[in-house]
Amino acid sequence: MTRFAAPGFTGSPLVRVDHERENQAWFDEQAMSLSARLLRLAGLTPAVEPDGTLGWGSLAEADPDVPLALLGLLDGKPRFVSLARIEEDSAQRSAAMNVALTQLQSEEAATYAIARGLVDWHSRHSFCARCGRTTQPFRSGWARLCDQATGGCGTEHFPRTDPVVIMLAEYEDRVLVGRQHRWPQGRYSALAGFVEVGESIEEAVARELHEEAGVIASNVRYVASQPWPFPSQLMIACIASAESPAINLDANEIEHAIWVDRAEVSAALRGDADAPFQAPPPYAIAHTLLSRWVTAEG
Amino acid sequence: MTRFAAPGFTGSPLVRVDHERENQAWFDEQAMSLSARLLRLAGLTPAVEPDGTLGWGSLAEADPDVPLALLGLLDGKPRFVSLARIEEDSAQRSAAMNVALTQLQSEEAATYAIARGLVDWHSRHSFCARCGRTTQPFRSGWARLCDQATGGCGTEHFPRTDPVVIMLAEYEDRVLVGRQHRWPQGRYSALAGFVEVGESIEEAVARELHEEAGVIASNVRYVASQPWPFPSQLMIACIASAESPAINLDANEIEHAIWVDRAEVSAALRGDADAPFQAPPPYAIAHTLLSRWVTAEG
Repeated sequence: MTRFAAPGFTGSPLVRVDHERENQAWFDEQAMSLSARLLRLAGLTPAVEPDGTLGWGSLAEADPDVPLALLGLLDGKPRFVSLARIEEDSAQRSAAMNVALTQLQSEEAATYAIARGLVDWHSRHSFCARCGRTTQPFRSGWARLCDQATGGCGTEHFPRTDPVVIMLAEYEDRVLVGRQHRWPQGRYSALAGFVEVGESIEEAVARELHEEAGVIASNVRYVASQPWPFPSQLMIACIASAESPAINLDANEIEHAIWVDRAEVSAALRGDADAPFQAPPPYAIAHTLLSRWVTAEG
Repeated sequence: MTRFAAPGFTGSPLVRVDHERENQAWFDEQAMSLSARLLRLAGLTPAVEPDGTLGWGSLAEADPDVPLALLGLLDGKPRFVSLARIEEDSAQRSAAMNVALTQLQSEEAATYAIARGLVDWHSRHSFCARCGRTTQPFRSGWARLCDQATGGCGTEHFPRTDPVVIMLAEYEDRVLVGRQHRWPQGRYSALAGFVEVGESIEEAVARELHEEAGVIASNVRYVASQPWPFPSQLMIACIASAESPAINLDANEIEHAIWVDRAEVSAALRGDADAPFQAPPPYAIAHTLLSRWVTAEG
């Protein structure tokens, strides 16, 4: 059995200690600990040490007017992040993403993904979607409460994670890759889309292939998953069998799509100059998906 | 290859026509169509015909003051649902669930899951989580807009789907099933928990098994998925390999857990009187998971 590289943003050594989150005394004790560490973030951009690890400071660096979340334990030390309100435009967000993707070691990027996802969720969810009142962090910063004590409706809100399917249609030893208008020239990747209300993973894969490429597919096989914290996706990578190689693109979604064989995908993954397309980068699960398809038995 | 029953709440023949949702003229045209049909719901409880199909009426039955969502097409006919505000307590919600689970044919239950999920999401998300103002349905009822034209922040909100992992730990041809306090006497099922921020499916499976049962597991294999519209979960069923049969239960989550072999699981799935536990019902993906494990090669 071939050993594969883990998907990007997985493998964080953070211990989440979920069962203690409701325990305010535990939170306070961790915050008083001399070993407590604060993740250094400027907006959503992480501080990165020269060795590609995340930068951590002491809790004394935190703005006392901003609530803290306790991410969990790393090396036995409690790890906090400030739940500052993020007011970044998409250019700043992309720059922060780029730092994480290019400068951090892979396990560090996974820890950053947790912190970023949590901070960003709080920042975008200050109000109760049910009653419109302001909410406050609780459960060690892993939820928000619309507090009845201050006139709220009592609803508890938890961070949102949006499942997304990303898939290769397969037909006679070739797979379908497509490109969007805004992508770098020559880049092709797996098609993708959000799982909708009342839909299984398998149904979402079949629906998206049909909608985006006119491909009728069945026999959906799960391959791998990764969190994608830009802002809050869970990427679920699959392969499905196409009935025919005919394609009918939704031009709003997909600019162009091509069927490629294993030699072509291998060339793209190696970055060969004469490869028929540019593969997605290694931290993207589409890369994992193509890599596993190439090495799987026909 | 054994053919398995599809997981509960999958297999709806509804055609979602996603690419037309933004097209208000298309929505209006469908609403004017003589073939347009309205799902009959009392709160969240579906009207059920004697043959186990959903009850549909004409759009004339809809409250004109309540916005409509266009679910999609069934038998070529546009299918609508009223986005009425639901004020049901948990007993009423359970009763509605029970109707769907016991009276509807399986494909009909899948269509109901879509409608219920959408109606319930709208009902619980009248306000913008970002700025607190009221939002309005748009995109044919598949999203809500915090409208800048009326002072909102412009954020578009889409229905939320929460990924949940549900899994069997496997050790030497036995799997771990556990029970919660509130379950019917004798009922055991797979353990489960929400996928968290910054976590893959595989990481969530390992974390939940460790937190709930003290089991160290790896080699996570995906088995199947289903939507679970009570209110908005995507259930992702997996099997993982346990390092040892030792268990250490989190008593807040799991009252009791047992390792069971294939003969015992088969007896439970058959409903044998002397089975060591009562299996989850067929519409639950835990049933699918146990069934597939029983018939898989050792």
